[in-house]
Amino acid sequence: MKRILTGVKPTGIAHLGNYFGAIKPAIELSKNSDYECYYFIADYHALTTVQNQEELFEYTYHIACTWLACGLDPNKVVLYKQSDVPQTFELSTILSNFTPKGLMNRAHAYKAKVEANEEAGEDKDYGINMGLYCYPILMTADILLLGADFVPVGIDQKQHIEIARDVASYFNRKYGNTFSLPEELISENVGALVGLDGRKMSKSYGNVIPIFADEAKLKKLVNRIVTDSTAPDEPKSLDNTIYKLYKLFGTEEQAKAFAQKLQKGISWGEAKAELFNLMNAYLSPMREKYNYLQQHREIVDEILRNGAQKARELAKQTIKNVRKAIGVVEVE
Amino acid sequence: MKRILTGVKPTGIAHLGNYFGAIKPAIELSKNSDYECYYFIADYHALTTVQNQEELFEYTYHIACTWLACGLDPNKVVLYKQSDVPQTFELSTILSNFTPKGLMNRAHAYKAKVEANEEAGEDKDYGINMGLYCYPILMTADILLLGADFVPVGIDQKQHIEIARDVASYFNRKYGNTFSLPEELISENVGALVGLDGRKMSKSYGNVIPIFADEAKLKKLVNRIVTDSTAPDEPKSLDNTIYKLYKLFGTEEQAKAFAQKLQKGISWGEAKAELFNLMNAYLSPMREKYNYLQQHREIVDEILRNGAQKARELAKQTIKNVRKAIGVVEVE
Repeated sequence: MKRILTGVKPTGIAHLGNYFGAIKPAIELSKNSDYECYYFIADYHALTTVQNQEELFEYTYHIACTWLACGLDPNKVVLYKQSDVPQTFELSTILSNFTPKGLMNRAHAYKAKVEANEEAGEDKDYGINMGLYCYPILMTADILLLGADFVPVGIDQKQHIEIARDVASYFNRKYGNTFSLPEELISENVGALVGLDGRKMSKSYGNVIPIFADEAKLKKLVNRIVTDSTAPDEPKSLDNTIYKLYKLFGTEEQAKAFAQKLQKGISWGEAKAELFNLMNAYLSPMREKYNYLQQHREIVDEILRNGAQKARELAKQTIKNVRKAIGVVEVE
Repeated sequence: MKRILTGVKPTGIAHLGNYFGAIKPAIELSKNSDYECYYFIADYHALTTVQNQEELFEYTYHIACTWLACGLDPNKVVLYKQSDVPQTFELSTILSNFTPKGLMNRAHAYKAKVEANEEAGEDKDYGINMGLYCYPILMTADILLLGADFVPVGIDQKQHIEIARDVASYFNRKYGNTFSLPEELISENVGALVGLDGRKMSKSYGNVIPIFADEAKLKKLVNRIVTDSTAPDEPKSLDNTIYKLYKLFGTEEQAKAFAQKLQKGISWGEAKAELFNLMNAYLSPMREKYNYLQQHREIVDEILRNGAQKARELAKQTIKNVRKAIGVVEVE
């Protein structure tokens, strides 16, 4: 059985782009019995940007409740918080000594920040904290600590897995075989989900639909979807946001029927109402579960506690091996 | 009562320069009842350069045995290993997010490496690992974790304490008062101890006398001390290595008598024999204790275990406060 590791940063409110792009595929993957899945809430990774007590706290519960409400089965997936596996930070500290600084200079996320600073005429390291700069080391520790075989990532994250492999190989050459080398599992490009304005759904565009928006809010958002000026009874092109969203929520049959209606010429208003009904039917049970969990955080705590225990079992064994390899004296 | 923290890197064999420059003053400081002293073996700091299992392991015991043999009283000083206080690494990970990268770019040790690289025509980060680059963050974590009031350092290390203060202040401003601000305790310059060749005693000059060199070796080293060409019965200047070492080991009276002999004109050979006898009388009991401890490492383990427990008591409280401040969800 191969071990899969995925981390999710609690940095904001999950929207439909996150759902279709990351959450749903990850949950589907966890149903594959070839894999044992460890999914974690990367709260210390979030700390590079979420430097506010209440936000980190609330986003952490939000992410846990979101994944559970979306169908993550805690009996199939070990769900835990990074902050509950302190071996991560010890390993990260150790691995930093086997990470050439040059490797960090070439990391994409850092380089992008430097370029933006240079364009703005700022010092190249302006506004960059060491958490951001050392991010790939912490991620390497997450991965190697649990002995992950595969890490599902977007193509833009491939470099991080290469870094993890580089550091692991370097350590293995120096101290003998200690880490297994992780591989990236490049997720098929499902195509960017469109937002309210037809552009990619993204927090930074302000065009998102939160997964658990309540009914009134969801209706309001659907009504805000930008359409073209085709008159109510004219046939509509299928290249529009409403139809694209409809296809994601509906069965193939439903989508086909909806396409026919559009081509025959229902009004945008009617189309939006149909989309809303479909979405709401899909999202309601999830929303209810989400709200229930938010109101019963002790259930979430229990799941995270169990997950942490399981993750720590692996972590303890790895850190024990690593400490032995590097020559730490054990007195306890 | 003020808390003092000192870290010692297990990177090599302790010599008389270390003894008179660091070990003896630190042990004397620990006898001052105004202070509670936490002295730790910084094994993960050593990892920036000691990347060999046996070396790290042996140097760790060497440092522990050395300090105990030199008179450290484990009832007065909490002696522990950094690797036994894993909260250090969690705090270091957290603090990295509150450490501007620019601050690390300006750290002396890193800058010196960069300059050496530039002079050698290499890439500026050539051969620099992230452990070295992030060293001041880990040191900040060591200090803030235990709430140290004072950190005895040489003038060259003053910057590290300033960095610790900067990071602590920044965190406090953001999250409310969490850390007390440490102060440096600049050790009076005892003057560099001279080595066998009259230059500063330093491993890199190959002119050191190990504290626990056995009798035969010690005699051999003393005989290697470079002298001038004054003839055997001519009066000797007091500006020589033999007299300088003699003064360190003897009482004022002994030193005075020895000065008279030199000025009257004993031979260098006789002078060396007298120096050897004095040194050997001083060092023998320490050497015996050192050898005994090395042969009874279970005694050392017990001391380090007790020390780790005490250090962890402080560490747990600090990390609990910090986690609460930043908004970590606690499930256990």
